[in-house]
Amino acid sequence: MLQHSSLDRVFHALADPTRRAMVERLVTGPASVSELAAPFKVSLSAIGQQVQLLEECGLVRTAKVGRVRTVELQPDVLDAAERWFQKHRARWERRMDRLGALLEEPDEDETPPPRRKS
Amino acid sequence: MLQHSSLDRVFHALADPTRRAMVERLVTGPASVSELAAPFKVSLSAIGQQVQLLEECGLVRTAKVGRVRTVELQPDVLDAAERWFQKHRARWERRMDRLGALLEEPDEDETPPPRRKS
Repeated sequence: MLQHSSLDRVFHALADPTRRAMVERLVTGPASVSELAAPFKVSLSAIGQQVQLLEECGLVRTAKVGRVRTVELQPDVLDAAERWFQKHRARWERRMDRLGALLEEPDEDETPPPRRKS
Repeated sequence: MLQHSSLDRVFHALADPTRRAMVERLVTGPASVSELAAPFKVSLSAIGQQVQLLEECGLVRTAKVGRVRTVELQPDVLDAAERWFQKHRARWERRMDRLGALLEEPDEDETPPPRRKS
């Protein structure tokens, strides 16, 4: 599970549609910064800043070979953020199950459970 | 699936530790604004603003009865945000499966597959 402050940064990173689109692209495999920039009408340096933010929160790793910086997704960090949802959905579902069971119980004040003859 | 702009707002809402803690509390059931504020060393009006932000992005619904405002989680919106992760994890896993299958294939240049005698 990610630390609280790391979750802050990951959710902040994913709150931006450009950065989310970059992550969606990287799910299909590593890409150069230029390849990541191609679909967007913003400067290469603006995309470089978004890559840096993604790298700072651990969502991607980059490596420079010659003049080309390649960006690679770190799926563990994405998984950790997903687990935040899974954990709380599980708690919610248990609560709903308990409520459901409670509603199915006969109301003891009005209809006492039938006693078996001994 | 949530619209892109809605996902922006939901992830932005969840990027704040106080708001995330409020959502975690609401997973266990509805709460008044005062109850939500109790664990935090901030003013009731600051918590009210956080509740408003959560309400604007659809994560919670509030209802006022008399002087008490009750806050209730809207799990559908949480589910929709979780699906963003599920969808992209599924794509990532398919990619890994394909890569794995590729690595298991015999290298045709070096070791041609053995022919069966006819």
